Amino acid sequence: MKASQFFVSTLKEAPADAEVVSHKLMTRAGLIKKLGAGIYTYMPMGLRVIRKVEAIVREEMNRAGAVECTMPVVQPGELWQETGRFEKMGPELLRIRDRHGRDFVVQPTSEEVITDIARQELRSYKQLPRNFYQIQTKFRDERRPRFGLMRGREFTMKDAYSFDRNPEAAKASYQVMAQAYRRIFDRFGLTYRAVAADSGAIGGDLSEEFQVIAATGEDAIVYCPASDYAANMEKAESAPPTGPRPAPAQAQTLTPTPGKATCADVAALLGVPLASTVKSLVLATDTLDEDGNVTASQVWLLLLRGDHDMNEVKVSKLPGLDVGFRFATLAEIQSHFGTEPGYLGPLGLLQPVKVVADREVAVMADWICGANRKDYHITGVNWGRDLPEPDLVADLRNVVAGDPSPDGKGALAIERGIEVGHVFYLGTKYSKAMNATFLAEDGKPAFFEMGCYGIGITRLPAAAIEQNHDERGIIWPDAIAPFTVVICPIGMDRSEAVKAAAGQLYAELLAAGVDVILDDRGERPGAMFADWELIGVPHRVTIGDKGLKDGKVEYQHRRDSAATAVDVSQMADLLRSKLAV
Amino acid sequence: MKASQFFVSTLKEAPADAEVVSHKLMTRAGLIKKLGAGIYTYMPMGLRVIRKVEAIVREEMNRAGAVECTMPVVQPGELWQETGRFEKMGPELLRIRDRHGRDFVVQPTSEEVITDIARQELRSYKQLPRNFYQIQTKFRDERRPRFGLMRGREFTMKDAYSFDRNPEAAKASYQVMAQAYRRIFDRFGLTYRAVAADSGAIGGDLSEEFQVIAATGEDAIVYCPASDYAANMEKAESAPPTGPRPAPAQAQTLTPTPGKATCADVAALLGVPLASTVKSLVLATDTLDEDGNVTASQVWLLLLRGDHDMNEVKVSKLPGLDVGFRFATLAEIQSHFGTEPGYLGPLGLLQPVKVVADREVAVMADWICGANRKDYHITGVNWGRDLPEPDLVADLRNVVAGDPSPDGKGALAIERGIEVGHVFYLGTKYSKAMNATFLAEDGKPAFFEMGCYGIGITRLPAAAIEQNHDERGIIWPDAIAPFTVVICPIGMDRSEAVKAAAGQLYAELLAAGVDVILDDRGERPGAMFADWELIGVPHRVTIGDKGLKDGKVEYQHRRDSAATAVDVSQMADLLRSKLAV
Repeated sequence: MKASQFFVSTLKEAPADAEVVSHKLMTRAGLIKKLGAGIYTYMPMGLRVIRKVEAIVREEMNRAGAVECTMPVVQPGELWQETGRFEKMGPELLRIRDRHGRDFVVQPTSEEVITDIARQELRSYKQLPRNFYQIQTKFRDERRPRFGLMRGREFTMKDAYSFDRNPEAAKASYQVMAQAYRRIFDRFGLTYRAVAADSGAIGGDLSEEFQVIAATGEDAIVYCPASDYAANMEKAESAPPTGPRPAPAQAQTLTPTPGKATCADVAALLGVPLASTVKSLVLATDTLDEDGNVTASQVWLLLLRGDHDMNEVKVSKLPGLDVGFRFATLAEIQSHFGTEPGYLGPLGLLQPVKVVADREVAVMADWICGANRKDYHITGVNWGRDLPEPDLVADLRNVVAGDPSPDGKGALAIERGIEVGHVFYLGTKYSKAMNATFLAEDGKPAFFEMGCYGIGITRLPAAAIEQNHDERGIIWPDAIAPFTVVICPIGMDRSEAVKAAAGQLYAELLAAGVDVILDDRGERPGAMFADWELIGVPHRVTIGDKGLKDGKVEYQHRRDSAATAVDVSQMADLLRSKLAV
Repeated sequence: MKASQFFVSTLKEAPADAEVVSHKLMTRAGLIKKLGAGIYTYMPMGLRVIRKVEAIVREEMNRAGAVECTMPVVQPGELWQETGRFEKMGPELLRIRDRHGRDFVVQPTSEEVITDIARQELRSYKQLPRNFYQIQTKFRDERRPRFGLMRGREFTMKDAYSFDRNPEAAKASYQVMAQAYRRIFDRFGLTYRAVAADSGAIGGDLSEEFQVIAATGEDAIVYCPASDYAANMEKAESAPPTGPRPAPAQAQTLTPTPGKATCADVAALLGVPLASTVKSLVLATDTLDEDGNVTASQVWLLLLRGDHDMNEVKVSKLPGLDVGFRFATLAEIQSHFGTEPGYLGPLGLLQPVKVVADREVAVMADWICGANRKDYHITGVNWGRDLPEPDLVADLRNVVAGDPSPDGKGALAIERGIEVGHVFYLGTKYSKAMNATFLAEDGKPAFFEMGCYGIGITRLPAAAIEQNHDERGIIWPDAIAPFTVVICPIGMDRSEAVKAAAGQLYAELLAAGVDVILDDRGERPGAMFADWELIGVPHRVTIGDKGLKDGKVEYQHRRDSAATAVDVSQMADLLRSKLAV
């Protein structure tokens, strides 16, 4: 490609609404152009990146035996009513009425449509396993779209759906996809981690997220540097405490802590480690009658070490809390604890509550908690002596860096990631809701066992940039760069020698299948270099009269701090070897 | 591709709602699957065809210097309000409100968005010419979607938009696109015709439709077999009459024609040629005040030869009628003609009307028209003698087969076509509405001169099928077939020889870059052949034990009535030569 025949458009300044570096750089480099909140045009330079991402995904999906189709963007509401998602999804689901007043949605995913196709097309177990995928426009009406392509409203997703005859076969299909995802992410040339994720009501370990590692990532990722353990924060188990509970050594003492409503403040005031304090979280569960009216409520007190945070996913699975919990109201707190949040604790309650202690809290002695009296805490609290053992002891907390790995192979570390892929075993959730069956080997109808597998095609370039950039701009991995090589001729309009050398290298690289752009726009060197550094083309060749006199041109990788002189006759070979073409 | 790893799904019966052959065959061959009215999933077999169409379009658009981008499917209503299309487009435009109550549309085309991009990105004449295109999902909420992909609601279109500094440059850009379209349609391997189309208010000849010729086409196409004249029916001019008007030979006579309200009936009753009768069409135009209320109306009488039809586009451009016309009401007809339609004519009017005669009517003598009296016509009518010369003489009619070509090079013929492409010079229609300017060479802002260029990507396969099919199914041209070659092994599971020969040919063809599918499903020969004939793969190789004994396999083109025995060692070469790979 010659730059004069392409569309190169860069900006000095990032738009005012760009908060993250990928959004800033994608806009400045002319990859995307905002049309509305969370809605972007993929400009020619950006579309090249997206097409390369698509091509890698497509190749590996095909290799893994998935078959591509394209489902409609606009989908009938009735199908979405079959699974209840038409109502359940809330305002994120963009709903439309057509000219005849019929309900439609703009697809956020396509479980309903593909299950509808499967129940019509896959009639026998002999047609299974089957995996359909599409790379197609999606829409989620985010309440607060931001971060450019990172959390847009319109986006492109690769979504795949597997259909199997039984759970074992479905799990095998899942593993095939998980492996394909590893190949895909390897090929992107990004640093990523596949982490175990929560699989919701289905259970088991068949849910993994593919996270591109970046300091700016929204998600906390837990991993063990000494083993292959990796999970997202929701999912990561904390290892059970090792030692037994120490014997009480202190007396229970009411201690004034005026205005100190947090564990951190109390620990600082008393000069004790934060880990010796216990925080109280008050939840509630409701019993409903047939009409959905609340007939009774139960108040729960969760106790966590002061330096730990509650993990809502873990809590949502505890017996009694798995019906769905909420935070207690101020009235409930007052009526049970007799005081306001900030000074709550398990001692001296006005009404009984269910006490759930994190495993770490259950092995503490001489701990500190709120006194259920404003401006007071109690120190030297001990289980058994001062209060009964908790009703339930469980893993309630997010892990923290340094926690022992649950596989016993070292300490956990935490880093940030951007989720760009997810593989998920669905079981029969959708097939049962939509009565999607096939004839099993025994001649009876059976529900499809399903899996779903997504990759955020347009999110991936943003994640790649969050991971790979510097103060001058983007640094693309070769595989998804808009162009792999840029040739920058200096004074091409004045020098026949430069023009000839640039033209010859360009032709040689094209012939070798290298995705090269020749910058023939006639820009001055400074502006030209700044453009390509901003755009992030990984390999640059500079050709000028000065070097050519000695038969030299310059090579510089986008990460190199300086250029290297190379014999003009060697440059094509050098690039071919670097690019392995 | 091996069929066992692909998704082959055929149906014996077409769906009840399929009216046209392409809809029937695309559904039966498993290319598409209906999701809702006018909304289809492109199944794996169909998507392959669409991808090949896209690839050809993309290659030729790139070759012609257009640059690909992707504009959003969901577009803000405000932009559409700038051009007035948000209101004007009526219910065909699918409108959405997002969660914040803001108006959006699902794009039917993208003039507004690309003009918005141009007014931001193209600041100087130095950046022109520029042509952006996309291949993207579109939606038109057709009142009556039907004919499968031929008139669907959701579809894929390639839409390109050119921006130029002046009309001459814009016309040059238009010609570049028109040439690219010819290359594209040549490559599809279809019989097509580029025909002049009406260019609306802009005038000139810079509007062409690309019509795939098919007996079932919706559009009438006019062409001259002896020259390169071709136009759609709306646009096709009739040549002016040659001879002068003959002198009157008959007396004007009131003739009873009881119950004969059409020219055809009258001609039959009187035993005269239809071409000696004149039909009367009554139109009206309204004068409006500032508030849009009608303050006055003018009635028009259009006179056409009994064997001719009115051309609304031509009539809409006549002076006085170009403000917008309607058919007259029954009350207006009664008050001016004193009778009801069926017996109208230009003689003996109650109130004056403007009389417009088609050029052919203006040179008639001794003609027959309604008497403005029920059940009566007048014969022997003559201009000048019986009534004044018409207020206006013009080309009002559709041409008919046998009319002289307007280029004077022979007689016109008419055939049917399916419009799959359109190139159009827009002028400054959108740039003026959206105040989209660039700095011209004189340093002053100037409006972009634009063109737009569409290809119905998902309509094209349907048009190809309308043109190329037989009672057994589809017959694809090589370029857009889902697979170019199918290998059908007979008894592959029983015969090692068949399996080996099929596997070897498959590998050889793959290596040669042939898009081949090996049918390893184990279907019986009859079902296997029926499937591939229905699907329409153009080249078939059959491999069986019987032939292999003599070192032979069979080749059959989808259009051949019988197979040809070919040496197994020659088959790959034969296919390579047929496919020119």
